[in-house]
Amino acid sequence: MAVSMPQTVPTLDVLARRFREVRDRTEWLCAPLSAEDQTAQSMPDASPAKWHRAHTTWFFETFLLRPLHAAYQPLDERYAYLFNSYYNAVGPQYFRPHRGLVTRPGAQAVGQYRAHVDAAMLDLLEGRAPLRGDVPAATIELGLNHEEQHQELILTDLKHLLAHNPTWPVYRERARRPSVTPPALAWREFSEGVYEIGHGGRGFAFDNEAPRHKVFVQPFALANRPVTVGEYLEFIGDGGYRRPELWLSDGWRLVQERDWQGPLYWLQDGGARRAFTLSGSLALDPAEPVCHVSYFEADAYARWAGARLPTEAEWEVAASDQPVAGNFMESGNFHPAPGDGAARLFGDVWVWTQSAYLPYPGFRPPDGAIGEYNAKFMSGQMVLRGGSCATPRGHIRATYRNFFPPDARWQFSGIRLARDGS
Amino acid sequence: MAVSMPQTVPTLDVLARRFREVRDRTEWLCAPLSAEDQTAQSMPDASPAKWHRAHTTWFFETFLLRPLHAAYQPLDERYAYLFNSYYNAVGPQYFRPHRGLVTRPGAQAVGQYRAHVDAAMLDLLEGRAPLRGDVPAATIELGLNHEEQHQELILTDLKHLLAHNPTWPVYRERARRPSVTPPALAWREFSEGVYEIGHGGRGFAFDNEAPRHKVFVQPFALANRPVTVGEYLEFIGDGGYRRPELWLSDGWRLVQERDWQGPLYWLQDGGARRAFTLSGSLALDPAEPVCHVSYFEADAYARWAGARLPTEAEWEVAASDQPVAGNFMESGNFHPAPGDGAARLFGDVWVWTQSAYLPYPGFRPPDGAIGEYNAKFMSGQMVLRGGSCATPRGHIRATYRNFFPPDARWQFSGIRLARDGS
Amino acid sequence: MAVSMPQTVPTLDVLARRFREVRDRTEWLCAPLSAEDQTAQSMPDASPAKWHRAHTTWFFETFLLRPLHAAYQPLDERYAYLFNSYYNAVGPQYFRPHRGLVTRPGAQAVGQYRAHVDAAMLDLLEGRAPLRGDVPAATIELGLNHEEQHQELILTDLKHLLAHNPTWPVYRERARRPSVTPPALAWREFSEGVYEIGHGGRGFAFDNEAPRHKVFVQPFALANRPVTVGEYLEFIGDGGYRRPELWLSDGWRLVQERDWQGPLYWLQDGGARRAFTLSGSLALDPAEPVCHVSYFEADAYARWAGARLPTEAEWEVAASDQPVAGNFMESGNFHPAPGDGAARLFGDVWVWTQSAYLPYPGFRPPDGAIGEYNAKFMSGQMVLRGGSCATPRGHIRATYRNFFPPDARWQFSGIRLARDGS
Amino acid sequence: MAVSMPQTVPTLDVLARRFREVRDRTEWLCAPLSAEDQTAQSMPDASPAKWHRAHTTWFFETFLLRPLHAAYQPLDERYAYLFNSYYNAVGPQYFRPHRGLVTRPGAQAVGQYRAHVDAAMLDLLEGRAPLRGDVPAATIELGLNHEEQHQELILTDLKHLLAHNPTWPVYRERARRPSVTPPALAWREFSEGVYEIGHGGRGFAFDNEAPRHKVFVQPFALANRPVTVGEYLEFIGDGGYRRPELWLSDGWRLVQERDWQGPLYWLQDGGARRAFTLSGSLALDPAEPVCHVSYFEADAYARWAGARLPTEAEWEVAASDQPVAGNFMESGNFHPAPGDGAARLFGDVWVWTQSAYLPYPGFRPPDGAIGEYNAKFMSGQMVLRGGSCATPRGHIRATYRNFFPPDARWQFSGIRLARDGS
Repeated sequence: MAVSMPQTVPTLDVLARRFREVRDRTEWLCAPLSAEDQTAQSMPDASPAKWHRAHTTWFFETFLLRPLHAAYQPLDERYAYLFNSYYNAVGPQYFRPHRGLVTRPGAQAVGQYRAHVDAAMLDLLEGRAPLRGDVPAATIELGLNHEEQHQELILTDLKHLLAHNPTWPVYRERARRPSVTPPALAWREFSEGVYEIGHGGRGFAFDNEAPRHKVFVQPFALANRPVTVGEYLEFIGDGGYRRPELWLSDGWRLVQERDWQGPLYWLQDGGARRAFTLSGSLALDPAEPVCHVSYFEADAYARWAGARLPTEAEWEVAASDQPVAGNFMESGNFHPAPGDGAARLFGDVWVWTQSAYLPYPGFRPPDGAIGEYNAKFMSGQMVLRGGSCATPRGHIRATYRNFFPPDARWQFSGIRLARDGS
Repeated sequence: MAVSMPQTVPTLDVLARRFREVRDRTEWLCAPLSAEDQTAQSMPDASPAKWHRAHTTWFFETFLLRPLHAAYQPLDERYAYLFNSYYNAVGPQYFRPHRGLVTRPGAQAVGQYRAHVDAAMLDLLEGRAPLRGDVPAATIELGLNHEEQHQELILTDLKHLLAHNPTWPVYRERARRPSVTPPALAWREFSEGVYEIGHGGRGFAFDNEAPRHKVFVQPFALANRPVTVGEYLEFIGDGGYRRPELWLSDGWRLVQERDWQGPLYWLQDGGARRAFTLSGSLALDPAEPVCHVSYFEADAYARWAGARLPTEAEWEVAASDQPVAGNFMESGNFHPAPGDGAARLFGDVWVWTQSAYLPYPGFRPPDGAIGEYNAKFMSGQMVLRGGSCATPRGHIRATYRNFFPPDARWQFSGIRLARDGS
Repeated sequence: MAVSMPQTVPTLDVLARRFREVRDRTEWLCAPLSAEDQTAQSMPDASPAKWHRAHTTWFFETFLLRPLHAAYQPLDERYAYLFNSYYNAVGPQYFRPHRGLVTRPGAQAVGQYRAHVDAAMLDLLEGRAPLRGDVPAATIELGLNHEEQHQELILTDLKHLLAHNPTWPVYRERARRPSVTPPALAWREFSEGVYEIGHGGRGFAFDNEAPRHKVFVQPFALANRPVTVGEYLEFIGDGGYRRPELWLSDGWRLVQERDWQGPLYWLQDGGARRAFTLSGSLALDPAEPVCHVSYFEADAYARWAGARLPTEAEWEVAASDQPVAGNFMESGNFHPAPGDGAARLFGDVWVWTQSAYLPYPGFRPPDGAIGEYNAKFMSGQMVLRGGSCATPRGHIRATYRNFFPPDARWQFSGIRLARDGS
Repeated sequence: MAVSMPQTVPTLDVLARRFREVRDRTEWLCAPLSAEDQTAQSMPDASPAKWHRAHTTWFFETFLLRPLHAAYQPLDERYAYLFNSYYNAVGPQYFRPHRGLVTRPGAQAVGQYRAHVDAAMLDLLEGRAPLRGDVPAATIELGLNHEEQHQELILTDLKHLLAHNPTWPVYRERARRPSVTPPALAWREFSEGVYEIGHGGRGFAFDNEAPRHKVFVQPFALANRPVTVGEYLEFIGDGGYRRPELWLSDGWRLVQERDWQGPLYWLQDGGARRAFTLSGSLALDPAEPVCHVSYFEADAYARWAGARLPTEAEWEVAASDQPVAGNFMESGNFHPAPGDGAARLFGDVWVWTQSAYLPYPGFRPPDGAIGEYNAKFMSGQMVLRGGSCATPRGHIRATYRNFFPPDARWQFSGIRLARDGS
C-alpha cells in the first residue's frame, strides 16, 4: 500500500530488534496453518499465506540485500519473479490471480527462504555483512511496516478462504469475553476552521500521509463509537437491503447482482444470527461493532440513520488528540469486541470515510520502484481510518490512510457516523 | 445528472419562451438523423436519440403535467415505464442496455409524443390549463436544464454509434476553419487561502453545485489553455502508452486490456493522423485541443508533462472571474476548435479534474424522485469542468460539476494542466 | 446453412419466374416493418431484417453478377464488406454482433440495393446481359434457397426482437382458427434393416444432404404427431423443470443459470398461460404443438414421457413416403396450428432429433467460398427436421437437415417422440 | 464417466486382490506430490489430486459400505457432501470450481479416509463384515474402473496445474528412450458392410458401451499410426493456424480468441521446440505422436492432410482384432513414445473421432444414482478411442468410449487419420 518518510531515524540495533519481532509475528500468525491452508487463493484480490510470507521476504531481498549486501547470494533466482507483487520498475510479475497455482516452492521451502533472508538481514543490521553503502534505515522501516500490512492481509485473506469451507474451520479458538453493553450513541462536536492534517514529521509514516497541509473543515459532529450489530439488524429489519432510496446507484446494483442481504460472513442458521469468524461459526453479539460491510452498505446505513460518513479530514481532526488504544491483532481476538464503554477511535474495525483516496496537495511519491508503493493506486478507492482487530497495534496512527474499493467487504471494515454541525 | 435550486425565479412567459427554444433545439439536433440512426444503441451507457427525445418529454409529463395539469391525458400510459431512466421513486424502469431494442414507438411516434406534451406544457405555461396548484418554475427550469444535458448526450451517443459504421457517416458537414497556432503554454498563478466555491444563489444550478462553502486551497498555477493534439502526439511518441510508470494502476490495466494506443476515435490511415468526427473522418489538426481521452489518459499525460490535473476547487477559483465564452454547441462545429489565441476556460473540451465526484459539505438532495437526479451517482466518478463543443452555451457556468467514470472516453473530454504553486 | 447439388437443372425462364417470386416474398415479409423494426438486433445470433434483405442480395451480386455479368456496376462497393456474412474466401466481414449498429444504409437504401441487383439479375436471366460465361443454374437455385432460409430467419429474428418490447407489438394480425382436438398419440412402427437416406439426385438439395447412403436402423416407432402444449403443461406440472434426473447435465445447468420455467416466449399472466407471438400476446391453445423449446427441453420431455427423440435417420425413413403438406409460412399463421387430426410430419414445428449435425459418409463440400455454406458448421449442433410454420412450403423436403445449437430456442422448434421398436 | 454391465462376475477374492492393486496405484501416483501439489485446482474442469483420492473413496463408501456393511461407521459425515462429484440422486454437491479452496481435510487426512474405507472394504470383500445383503460384484468392479479413470485424471489435471508454474516442476524423471523412426504412413482398407460394435457381454464395460448393435459402415481406410510431431510441424509451417478454410467455424473462433499457435504445453524456446511434460520441459521428438490437441485441431489437421478423422464405428471395427498393447501408464513415461515401428491402435494418445458422444441404439442407463455415471453427459462432446500413456493398461478395450468437449486439450489427445475407401 504505501511508502515511508521517516524523519527520526531509528538506530540499527533498534531496527534489528524490531526486525526480529515483526518477522517472528508473521510466522506466529501462520503457525496454525497447514501447507494446504497456506497455498489456496480464494479470489484475485486475496493471496495465499505462503505468498505473503515469501513476498514480504522478497521485499527485503530486493530493496536491501541485493543492492547493499556485498556477499549476499539469493537462495533461488526465480523468486525474484515469482514474489514480485506489482513493482513494474523491478521487473515483470507472475499473474496475480494464479498465485494459488504455484504449489512449488511449498510452505516449508518458503520457510527456508525466510530463514535465508533473515540471516542475511541480521548480518546486515548487526554489522557482520560487507556493505556497498550506508544502511538506509528508512527502507528497513518501510519493509517492516510493509510486512505489518501483510500480517493483516494474511488474516483477512485466510478468513475469506476458510469461509469457502462448509465445515467452518477454526483458525484459532477464541476466549469469549463477556458481552458488555456499548455506550449510548453520543456526538462529539467540532467547530469549523482551518485545521492541519497529514503526517508532520516525527516517526514513520507512509508517503501517502504527507505532506501535512491545511484544510478547511465545516462544523461537524462524530459518533462516540462504531455502529453495532444490534443497530445494523434494525437497519436490515427496516428493509435496508430492499429500499433503493437508501443506496448509491452503484451500491444498489451490487445489492441486486450479488444478492446482498447482510454483511459478508453472516450465516443464516434458523432464527439465530451467526457469522463465520476466524474461530469458526459464532453467534453474533448485538453489542459488537458491525464488520465486513462495504462502503456502499456503510453509506446506506448512514443515510437510513439520518447521518452520514465522516470525511477523512474530520476523522483525523477528531483522532489527533486520542490515544492509540483498543482491540488490535495482539489481543488474539481477530474479531471486533463487544463495546466496553470506551469511546475509542482506534481498533476493532476500520471505518469507511466518504473521502476518495486521492493525493494530498503537494504529494510527491519517492523515486524508483518504491514510488509505486502507494501512488499508483489513487483511483477508484475510498479511505478507511483507525485500524482493526487484525492490525498490529504499533502499526496504526491518526494520520494513517487505508484504502479499498467501495465494494470490498473482506477487510474488517465497519461504520462510524458523522453529521453536520452547526 | 442533477437538480435545481433556483433562487431567482423566472416568470412564466420567460419560461414559455425558453421552453420553446430548448425543445426546438433538440429537434434541430435530431433533424439529420434517420429513423434508423435514432434507434440503435451502441453500448449500455449510451442511449438512442429517439430515447433521449422521449425521455426528456417524459420528464415534463411526469414531474409537471401529471401532478399539475388537471385536464392532461397521457398519449400512451406505457411510456411512463418505457421512458423512465432511473427514478426508482416513480416506478420500475425498462432495462437500460436494451433501449435500442424498443423499435416501437418509432421516431415519428416519438415526435407525436413530444408535440402532445409540448402543447400541454404550453397550455400550462401560458395560462390555458386548469391547474391543481402553483406552477413550480424551479421544476420547469430543471426540466429544461435536464433536456440541455441530454442534447449533449444525443451528440456524444450518436458519435459513438456512427463510429461503428465503417463507412464513416457524416452527421453534419463542417466548415473547416483555418488553423490558428495556439498560444504558448503559460501558467496563471494563484495564492493559497480560504476560497469559496459552489453555487451561491442567483440563477439556476443543479443541487450538486450547492451549498457554497469554504475550502482551503494551496498555492497553484493553472495552464492558460487545454493540451493540444500536437502535444499529445509528443506524449505518444515518447512511449506514453507503453510506460507503466506514467499510469495509475487501474489505467495501466485498461491500456493493456483494451489496447489503447491513442484517444478514442483516432484512426490509423497510413502516415496521417485522422479521427472520426460528427463530420466524418477528418485529418487531425495539431493545434486543436486533444479530446476523447479518459481520466487515466489525462492523468498519465499530466505526469509525463511534469504537471498534474487541477482539483475542481482550483479550476473553479480560476474560472470564477472568467467570461463564459468559447466554442459551444451553437457553433455547429461539434468538434474542438484549433486555438485562436484566447485563453479560455469554457468550451471546446470538458477538462478532467483530479477530484472525485462527492457531495459538498452540507449537501442535501431534494425530497422525492427529483432527489435521485444527482445524489445517488456520487461514487466511482471524477468531476469534469468547463463544458465542451457539444454543450449548449447557456447551460454552463463556473460552478457546474459534470462527472463520468475515469475510463469514459466518449464525451468531449480533454486535459488542462495544473501544478503546485509556491 | 448449406449448398446445392441440383441434378435436374431448371431452365432460365423457370428460374426467372422463381427469382421474382422469392424476392417478392422477402419484401412482402418485411412490408409491415418500420425502418426501426428492420434495424435492431436483439442478440448476436439474430440479425436485423434490413441486414437479411441486404445479405441475400449480396449473395446474388457476389456469386453471380460480379463474376458473370460483364456490364454490372455495383451500387456501392462498401456493401461487399458490410453484407458478407461468414465467407472468409470472399473477404473479411463486419463484426456480426454489431449488425444492429449499422444504421446506414437504411431500410430504404437497402430497398434500392435490392432493386438494383434484381434488375441486373433479371437482365442476366432473361438474356439481356453480356455474359462472361454460362449462367450456372445451380448457383441461382442455391441463391434462392438461401433467401428462403433467410425468410424464416427474418421471422424468427423479428419475433426475438419484438419480444423485448413490453408493449407486445403485433407483426401481423392472425385469424384465430377454431381449436381442434389433436388425435390421440399413436405410434407408427418400423422394422430394422439397412435403409437409404440422404438426397439422391432429383431436384435441388443442399450439399449437407448428400450423398445418399446406407444406414442400419434398429426397429423403432415414431409418434403420429408433435407433442402439444397441453402435454407439455403436464410435464411442467409434474416438476419437469425442477427434477435434475430428467435432464442432460448441460441442460440442467442452463435450467438453473437461465431460470427456465417453460418454453421461450411463454408469459405469466395470472392464471392463464399466454405466449408472445408474431400476432402479439395470445392465449395458449393446449391443442397446438409446443414450440420454442431447446434440444435440452425436448430431450427432458421425452425422458419424462418414457420415450426418446428420433434419430435423423429414423425421421427420414418415416418421412420418405409422406406428402409435404402442413402449416407453412404461406398460411400466414406464423404460429403452430392446433391439431386437426392429420398425422403430418412436415410443418408447424421443426422437431429436434437426437442426431448431432455431422457430415454424411463421403460428404464433400464444393470448392471455393460456396463450400463454406454448410461444412464449417458441423460441430456443436443438433439436427432438426420437417420445417415449421415459418418455412416456405417449397423449401422443405424429407432429406432436409436443419441444425442449431442444443440451447437454441428462438426457432420454431418442437418435439416428436420416438421409442425403440421390437 | 460411465457404468458397468459385467456379465462374468469375478469372485470376491479376485476382487479383493484387484481392489488392493487399484487403490495402491492411486497412492503410488500421488506419492511424489506435496500437500500443496495435491490441493490446487487450475481450472473448473480439473480437480485437485487430493480430491480425486477422496472422491474415489467416497464412491466405495457411498455405493457399497453405507448400503451394505452393517457395522460401517463413516469417518466424517461431512465428506458425503464434500466429495460427491455430480450425483444428484445422492444429494447436493460442493461447488465444483471451488474444490481447490477446501484446504481441510488436508492430504494427510484424506489418506486416513482412504485407509478407513479400505479397511472396511477389505472386511467386506474378505468376509469379515456383517452384511445387509449380497455383495454386488458389479458395483465393486465399477468402483475400481471408476478409480482407474480418476488415475488418468490425476495425471492430466496435475500436468495442467504444474504448467502454471514458471519453474517447470518435475513430477517424475523420465528415462529418455532412444528415438526410433516411425513407420511410413500406410492405410489399412476395410470394405463396406453391416458390422457389430459395442460391448457384447464378457468382462466389464461401462454402460455407454452397450448394447452391442449393428451399424452400416461405408468402405474406409485407417492410418497405421498416429500423426507425429514432425508431421504436425509441417501443418503449422504451412500456415495451419492462420488459414480459416482448414477449420470448423467454432474452431476458427477459438484459434483467434485463445491465440492458439500449437498444441497445449508447447513452449517457445528460441529455435528449438520444447514442451512441458510431467518430467519438466523437454525437447520435442519429431517421431513421437502429437498430443494435447483439441478436436478442432485434429479436424483441421486432417483436412489439411487431405484426409478426415475416423468415426468411432470405423475405429472399433479396425480395433476389434487388435491386441491391447502399447505405451500405457505402467510404462512410467507419462508421455507418448517415439514410434518404434509397431502399428498399434492402443496407448500413447487417445484419438479424436468425428463421432459425437451419443447413446447407442437401445441404450438404457441403470436405475438410481449409478445411472448418472455416463448418460447425462451425452451432449456437446466428441468420442475418443484407444487409451493413452496415462491410461492403466487393464482399463482400456476396443469398445471403450471416452468423451470430451471439442475444445478440450488437457487430455493426452492426438490424431489418427482415416479416409473414404472405394
